[in-house]
Amino acid sequence: MSTEKIVLTPIGFVKTDAVGDEVRDRSRTSKIIVNSEFAEALDGISSYSHLFVLFWLNQIKDDERKTLKVHPRGKTDLPLSGVFAVRTMLRPNPIGLTIVEIVDVHSNVLTIRGLDAYDGTPVLDIKPYDPWDVVENPKVPSWWKRLKKEKRMS
Amino acid sequence: MSTEKIVLTPIGFVKTDAVGDEVRDRSRTSKIIVNSEFAEALDGISSYSHLFVLFWLNQIKDDERKTLKVHPRGKTDLPLSGVFAVRTMLRPNPIGLTIVEIVDVHSNVLTIRGLDAYDGTPVLDIKPYDPWDVVENPKVPSWWKRLKKEKRMS
Repeated sequence: MSTEKIVLTPIGFVKTDAVGDEVRDRSRTSKIIVNSEFAEALDGISSYSHLFVLFWLNQIKDDERKTLKVHPRGKTDLPLSGVFAVRTMLRPNPIGLTIVEIVDVHSNVLTIRGLDAYDGTPVLDIKPYDPWDVVENPKVPSWWKRLKKEKRMS
Repeated sequence: MSTEKIVLTPIGFVKTDAVGDEVRDRSRTSKIIVNSEFAEALDGISSYSHLFVLFWLNQIKDDERKTLKVHPRGKTDLPLSGVFAVRTMLRPNPIGLTIVEIVDVHSNVLTIRGLDAYDGTPVLDIKPYDPWDVVENPKVPSWWKRLKKEKRMS
């Protein structure tokens, strides 16, 4: 196995008015401003309804990348879990992954719904979502289902 | 926007007997050998049925990262499309993303079904798949549906 370091360069960045927890509101729209040199790489994207957005969690400090276990959403009543078993931002390689709905595409600007990333977040990649990405009834831990239920009721 | 480079380190690698096009066979199982220092980060992962695997497409040369458009699957009868509108390996940041089924978890070794990555591929991140990742009837281009149909019939 190669041990060489992997170097990435952002292909654009996120533009949003949402601050703090507002970014978690899935009904919100935000924008991805793709660097103009990559505008052509968006050709054909409006034939899809949904995208994967990979982004760099640039607020995570180097020290935090060493975290191995967390309580989901920081809730100490939920079981301490490995970072690969939770969608926490604290991970060895802090890459965010979110599925978003395409609202509009105009030149190098994508307007999307559901991206939980802060203003100025560097975007690493954009990939189309297709029917192979749909899992029927994925199994999740019981704490996940409890958390979703509570959220719906609050 | 920060223009600093982003540096990643593999958290493990892929182990498979599949060679060439065999890696595309979704019924095949393969393994992810997680570096032992991250073994704890897998705790709780067996409560899920499916995972996202992010991996580094280390066969892509620096020059190929400049590609902006491709014919899907290299088929010239399919429309030339931007690389962000296709799941091609040729992308500015060649990160692979595949949804896999968990078959077995044992210490730092994950046995999974459906990973289309070659033997020795560096793995960057593992994330659990949950019901928020399910899109009902995602829209895709007509060439995508044609390709899937042909595949089923061949």
